[in-house]
Amino acid sequence: MYQGGSDDFLGAGDDVVVASEDFGIDFEAEVAVVTGDIAMGTGPDAALEGIRLLMLANDVSLRNLIPAELAKGFGFFQSKPASSLSPVAITPDALGPAWRDGRLHRPLLSFRNDEPFGRPDAGTDMAFDFSTLIAHAARTRRLGAGTIVGSGTVANRDPAVGSSCIAERRTRELLRDGRSVTRFLGFGERVRIEMLDEAGASLFGAIDQMVVCYAPPA
Amino acid sequence: MYQGGSDDFLGAGDDVVVASEDFGIDFEAEVAVVTGDIAMGTGPDAALEGIRLLMLANDVSLRNLIPAELAKGFGFFQSKPASSLSPVAITPDALGPAWRDGRLHRPLLSFRNDEPFGRPDAGTDMAFDFSTLIAHAARTRRLGAGTIVGSGTVANRDPAVGSSCIAERRTRELLRDGRSVTRFLGFGERVRIEMLDEAGASLFGAIDQMVVCYAPPA
Repeated sequence: MYQGGSDDFLGAGDDVVVASEDFGIDFEAEVAVVTGDIAMGTGPDAALEGIRLLMLANDVSLRNLIPAELAKGFGFFQSKPASSLSPVAITPDALGPAWRDGRLHRPLLSFRNDEPFGRPDAGTDMAFDFSTLIAHAARTRRLGAGTIVGSGTVANRDPAVGSSCIAERRTRELLRDGRSVTRFLGFGERVRIEMLDEAGASLFGAIDQMVVCYAPPA
Repeated sequence: MYQGGSDDFLGAGDDVVVASEDFGIDFEAEVAVVTGDIAMGTGPDAALEGIRLLMLANDVSLRNLIPAELAKGFGFFQSKPASSLSPVAITPDALGPAWRDGRLHRPLLSFRNDEPFGRPDAGTDMAFDFSTLIAHAARTRRLGAGTIVGSGTVANRDPAVGSSCIAERRTRELLRDGRSVTRFLGFGERVRIEMLDEAGASLFGAIDQMVVCYAPPA
């Protein structure tokens, strides 16, 4: 688990503005929860009760900046710019049986330029459920109401369902074929992230963003 | 540079509440700045103009939790609980010539149970000045007004001025004597952090906190 920026989030339709394609622009489709006040030392059972809302997130990542940052030992910073959130956040009870065991059991759909990219189930192969993640975060501190905890990129062991980020697909290509062929995002490309209920209705609305070149202030 | 919690800060006189002395409770006396809105890609010169306020901070650290966290490669989390801020934040122009080159040139005074612990100058041996730190943070993101950027523990090469955290004193002891004798903080101990102007008046008021054992909710 790592700490990210909290002062600046992107709206679901906002451009992802990046200064250079050389940064290795990637999306990460995730589920995220919003908590109420969580006391220091709260255990997983009580943490589960503290989950107020669920939403989707695009944890934008700049892959080519990550190795140098992690080598310094203090975690991500420049490699994790502002994240995007779904237009709608919903309460756990609105999810019915799809919300159980601290996991959201529905496929998370990602599209790159309207082409399907991944549809892994957000409840399958999630190593640490949200109650465990919240309890970990609250071990030595209280968490203020409104704290956002992300799942990490949704991924399944089954390669048939695709990936929720380009880096995972590139790694699968490397392991299978000896080289990665899928490129990171370029300016003008679009990413869409959505989750549907069993009747095919959108649960959170869609994150739908274009990657745009940053023009610095004069 | 690393990212810390932003949802929960301690007041200057609040207790530092920790579940166990075995965590290795330490203080870190720092200078921190509060920025206005900083655009993505802002350079150091413009970043300097974006500094709105200065204050002192106690970046409480749980030393014995750090090695396992850093070994995971994603930086601090449980080892850096809520930080404390001075009672007063002041504008750069109120500091006169003590504020220059993006550094605050005054001794930062730390006391453990009213015994002087350190008095290093916050402007001496500061490797990266605040304008450079802000520009680094803003390289791939904008920073919202109210962003807090800390200096890191104030430290001077001159051992005669003491230290702004226990870990540094322990390292100096280890290098000099082959073993560290100064213990981390125990429950009931107090830390005071303050900075005086040339006339001896307190610039920011004092951070003055007691370390207290945490009682979890029933």
